[in-house]
Amino acid sequence: MSLKEKFEQYKSILENALNALKNRYFFAQYPEMPSPAVYGEDAQQKGLQAFENQLNKPFDRLLQSGEWVASAEKSPFRNENIGIQYPVHKDVQTYIDLSKKAFQTWKKLTVEERAGVLIECLENIKKHFFEIAYATMHTTGQAFMMSFQASGPHANDRALEAIAMGYQELTYFVHNTSWIKPMGKVNVHLEKEFIPVPKGISLAIGCSTFPIWNTVPGMFASLITGNTVIVKPHPLAIYPIAIVVAEMQRTFQANGLDPHIVQIAIDHPNNLITKTLAEHPDIKIIDFTGSSEFGHYIESLPGKITFTEKAGVNSAIIDSTNNYKEMLNNLAFSVSLYSGQMCTAPQNILVSEKGIETENGIKSFEEFAQDFKAAVEGLCQNPKAGPAICGAIQNENTLKRIEEAKKLGKIILEPRKIQNTEFPNAVTSSPLILAINEKDKSVYEKELFGPIVLLIQTSSTDSSIAIAKEMAQKHGAISCLVYSKHSHVIEKVKEDMMEAATSVSFNLYGPIYVNQNAAFSDFHVTGGNPAGNASFTDASFVTKRFHYVGFRQPKS
Amino acid sequence: MSLKEKFEQYKSILENALNALKNRYFFAQYPEMPSPAVYGEDAQQKGLQAFENQLNKPFDRLLQSGEWVASAEKSPFRNENIGIQYPVHKDVQTYIDLSKKAFQTWKKLTVEERAGVLIECLENIKKHFFEIAYATMHTTGQAFMMSFQASGPHANDRALEAIAMGYQELTYFVHNTSWIKPMGKVNVHLEKEFIPVPKGISLAIGCSTFPIWNTVPGMFASLITGNTVIVKPHPLAIYPIAIVVAEMQRTFQANGLDPHIVQIAIDHPNNLITKTLAEHPDIKIIDFTGSSEFGHYIESLPGKITFTEKAGVNSAIIDSTNNYKEMLNNLAFSVSLYSGQMCTAPQNILVSEKGIETENGIKSFEEFAQDFKAAVEGLCQNPKAGPAICGAIQNENTLKRIEEAKKLGKIILEPRKIQNTEFPNAVTSSPLILAINEKDKSVYEKELFGPIVLLIQTSSTDSSIAIAKEMAQKHGAISCLVYSKHSHVIEKVKEDMMEAATSVSFNLYGPIYVNQNAAFSDFHVTGGNPAGNASFTDASFVTKRFHYVGFRQPKS
Repeated sequence: MSLKEKFEQYKSILENALNALKNRYFFAQYPEMPSPAVYGEDAQQKGLQAFENQLNKPFDRLLQSGEWVASAEKSPFRNENIGIQYPVHKDVQTYIDLSKKAFQTWKKLTVEERAGVLIECLENIKKHFFEIAYATMHTTGQAFMMSFQASGPHANDRALEAIAMGYQELTYFVHNTSWIKPMGKVNVHLEKEFIPVPKGISLAIGCSTFPIWNTVPGMFASLITGNTVIVKPHPLAIYPIAIVVAEMQRTFQANGLDPHIVQIAIDHPNNLITKTLAEHPDIKIIDFTGSSEFGHYIESLPGKITFTEKAGVNSAIIDSTNNYKEMLNNLAFSVSLYSGQMCTAPQNILVSEKGIETENGIKSFEEFAQDFKAAVEGLCQNPKAGPAICGAIQNENTLKRIEEAKKLGKIILEPRKIQNTEFPNAVTSSPLILAINEKDKSVYEKELFGPIVLLIQTSSTDSSIAIAKEMAQKHGAISCLVYSKHSHVIEKVKEDMMEAATSVSFNLYGPIYVNQNAAFSDFHVTGGNPAGNASFTDASFVTKRFHYVGFRQPKS
Repeated sequence: MSLKEKFEQYKSILENALNALKNRYFFAQYPEMPSPAVYGEDAQQKGLQAFENQLNKPFDRLLQSGEWVASAEKSPFRNENIGIQYPVHKDVQTYIDLSKKAFQTWKKLTVEERAGVLIECLENIKKHFFEIAYATMHTTGQAFMMSFQASGPHANDRALEAIAMGYQELTYFVHNTSWIKPMGKVNVHLEKEFIPVPKGISLAIGCSTFPIWNTVPGMFASLITGNTVIVKPHPLAIYPIAIVVAEMQRTFQANGLDPHIVQIAIDHPNNLITKTLAEHPDIKIIDFTGSSEFGHYIESLPGKITFTEKAGVNSAIIDSTNNYKEMLNNLAFSVSLYSGQMCTAPQNILVSEKGIETENGIKSFEEFAQDFKAAVEGLCQNPKAGPAICGAIQNENTLKRIEEAKKLGKIILEPRKIQNTEFPNAVTSSPLILAINEKDKSVYEKELFGPIVLLIQTSSTDSSIAIAKEMAQKHGAISCLVYSKHSHVIEKVKEDMMEAATSVSFNLYGPIYVNQNAAFSDFHVTGGNPAGNASFTDASFVTKRFHYVGFRQPKS
């Protein structure tokens, strides 16, 4: 099948995606529930088997060569190394050379041809959703359901969104035109071509907690616009994205294309290559998810086009509610989900010293603290819900951070181990909840990554809003959650958080959480505060990856 | 009339512009010929009078206050200071404070409301095209026709293009949606808002040669996306853009808006303010046209969104032609137009030592040099065409540069004064033409701004192409002109110059020149080589000026 025919095959997927993107309504090409009816009766069992078979063996599915090097990846659930070896080139120049070669053919395809084969990549990745889920679990510590959703269907939807956005922008202007300028007695007639030219090689630097979800948007945005991609995963979360890359390479090969259009470049334990790659003159585009410090370094590299997601300090503002109990449950879920290791998890919960208006009268700051503690405890210590929601702790530094944080305020809830009968060795921690005052700025103006929640007593809801705004402007924020039944509060929050370039969820109850950002509808990160300079997936996320070159000549 | 009604009034202009932009065909909202039939019988006379009346007086049309300061603007035609005083604030913070205040209302308008009033600004600027033309002549040294076209209709068209591009991008996504996610037995229903939020205050730094054409695209792109603008003109070319700013301020005021939505900030002779403004934390966006050195400084400022046009080394590759004489004429015009002071003027003319295939056999490098010399001399020394095409020299440093350049190669044509009967004191120079060899890289790899043309003898057309590509990749290029009747040469140029991110004009004869870039059709600067990081007007030129903030709450 030609690439043109391939495009026709997948065109309806693209059209649905484009329609959803433009109208921002609910759309999911890849169903989020790991249901046997959708994904096949034995899909989960087969995925688990593929995962178990891969452990302690070479990952030999990539169409890349190199020296076999064992990674340091460790399962937070089993608390043991997963022992996989990956092929590693001794010299990063090898990745660059292979990428440059692949670029020569990839850049010449039409956007339709690229869109077709990239959607086929997603369709092929879909066949591995369950192995990807287990690979994600046992590198990130996400519980199974989140691992499946975030690394599987949600990531694929985000990738499809990037393809659709790229397709839209690459086809907006005509690529050929007859330009006829009347000049009195004569016309000047030029035939013009407008070629969208990709920038070159793109580097996608992954993070340890969402190794696929945060990496594929940049990858697919670069690919649809004609750039080739080198993926540099976090050294502790290689396996999930390696499955994705291998599947893509095989899809390219099956379509007669160079598999090195996308490559994975893994650190040698004695040779960390991220900076070498990032500073390489042939790397033109860098997508990055990770720490603010490294993100600033990436943004400051001269001559690079960068897309960053860094740390932030997210706030929840509790003013008033008509459903106190459901609010507590929603909030408890949001801070517990993946043990607070999400970039969208609330950290600073701001409550006025005047208390919270509820359907049962005013709840004081102290009452709220105790009620919230009970809600979090109830969730995390529930033998079924606890491990399923909290998952495990990805990095041991997070455990140290929890210990150190204990002295930062009045302890409302001591962190405890979460019992996990399936994985008795799992590295876990329920949230540490501290109470502090709005004067303790030095405490709450830092990102305390992991299950650490600060209840901050403020002088008023206005002061809560001011703090949320200031934190977002100074330190970045990716989410904001507000409970209020007063329209003047809602309007004030909108006005202030707009200035802080932070999206806000209001009055969430039931099975929808501030942590969640839906592809085709919610923009993830605004790009307007220090938490990052880019957004999944607005027009800039693709238009910065190419430029137009024009050719014109007289009509012959 | 409400702003909404204003939008309806101008909607058809916007729709025509959008249609042209998308389809890249010929479109001009503002006719380029200064014809009395179009612009009014006495428009030119009135414009000249307005100009003469303004000389040596305070420019009192701005809706800005400040200390009156005389500028150093000097007419290259009269060789004397034009003696205009402008209002200057002692402290740049005053401009920032006024801009911040204006931003509070401007950002809240809808894109339709902003589009309406901005198009009205253009319609009002149009009434001053002739005064603008004389102001441009007597600051830049452009001859009348170019002054009229570049600063009048062509600039207005470029501004309209930016409005249209902004309108397109700001309305692409819906701003409100009902998001209904089916979750088995229940639906989650959120009402979502997506607000395009402007970045803040935008700084537009102008250049001395095209004080309006190069400045208005960034201004209008920032304004349509909701940012306020401070224009910092070049100290030697204030008057033309001051007319534009004054007219805009009056249009804003007439529509009940804050005139400080756009301001002009002029250097005090003892206090150059460009860097102070550029580094100010409240300046979020910077548009810049000027030297490469200053452009690099602008691009390196942390946390700023920058759009730059810097210097470049433009090439013409002469391989073969079917119309040798017309080629010479076209090329002679392009190097003479505004005495080579255009960013699109060819500097390096590359000819193989094997000569040029023509309809009358091979012309050797030496023959071409002599024939080209004759064509340039014929044009420049023609008493009518010479002054009308070459204009005058804007900056005395350019005269020094011509003198110094004489020792760089074999002189083919000595620069001469161009006789100008209307302005006998005009500072003029016909082009200096030098012959050098491809080995003299140190000579031709620098931008020699002004009427300095290098004829470079190369070993082959392939070598000519390689040099054009290398210059563009290393030093930037904004144009490239190629004469060839061989499709393999044309294909090779396309492939190589695409890699160098440089647009190419092929085989131009008659009244169309490589120097010209038409609004709504030709992208000006690609943004892909060192000549600049932005393009008039692609999607990135507007999308980088705002970001989306989302609000969501359950359907009540």
